[in-house]
Amino acid sequence: MPAKDLYHDTVKVALMKDGWTITQDPLSLRFGKKDFFIDLGAERLLAAEKNREKIAVEVKSFIGPSEIKDLENALGQFVLYQNALSILEPDRALFLAIREAVYVDLFEEAIGQLLLQRNLLQIVSFDPDQEVIIRWIT
Amino acid sequence: MPAKDLYHDTVKVALMKDGWTITQDPLSLRFGKKDFFIDLGAERLLAAEKNREKIAVEVKSFIGPSEIKDLENALGQFVLYQNALSILEPDRALFLAIREAVYVDLFEEAIGQLLLQRNLLQIVSFDPDQEVIIRWIT
Repeated sequence: MPAKDLYHDTVKVALMKDGWTITQDPLSLRFGKKDFFIDLGAERLLAAEKNREKIAVEVKSFIGPSEIKDLENALGQFVLYQNALSILEPDRALFLAIREAVYVDLFEEAIGQLLLQRNLLQIVSFDPDQEVIIRWIT
Repeated sequence: MPAKDLYHDTVKVALMKDGWTITQDPLSLRFGKKDFFIDLGAERLLAAEKNREKIAVEVKSFIGPSEIKDLENALGQFVLYQNALSILEPDRALFLAIREAVYVDLFEEAIGQLLLQRNLLQIVSFDPDQEVIIRWIT
């Protein structure tokens, strides 16, 4: 299993404050002969519909020397996991968890905007000090 | 500029043997405020049409301890570059260059097949000893 991201526990706390129950830590998937581990699986009861909303969350700290390299790595994981999930668990939505500061820096920029417009990523941003979710970008 | 991949020069030679002219080494792109460097740009004259076929090639050695990690990194770069190219140079096709052995290992497996079926990657495979192109997977 891969090492936990720096903000793993921060995101876990922020999700719980947002009403989510952490159901997997990590969420392991097997596709063909290959194993994948997504940082967190979580569920929330949608009272009105008596349905469970299910998500998988991959946490990325973006603390490497190159922001673009960090973006490439996050994007590659996201695309791979999303495609595997679409077959294995089509009712579970995948989110990339990043700090709100990273969101503003990268995703209000041209390249990040392009990725979001083309629905290549779904993001949940968080405040690492307050340990709260800031926004969901779907 | 990023360090050259282990097989950078091998792929360059193999492309030239295949009739390509290397036009950029690396191919640099600017998207918004961000710079990207794709390993190689190449062109080939299509005699019948008097047109130039243009490609960009990102070389990946896949020699890391985790094949899946290598795949994630390659996929992330590919998706990012392809989206930037689709705006900046829509007539240039992007290819990921990998050894034929890696192709067989990963892309004849379920996860690789899924990525190819969904048109998430285009691949050119090469023989590192003979320094020749084996196949183009589009």
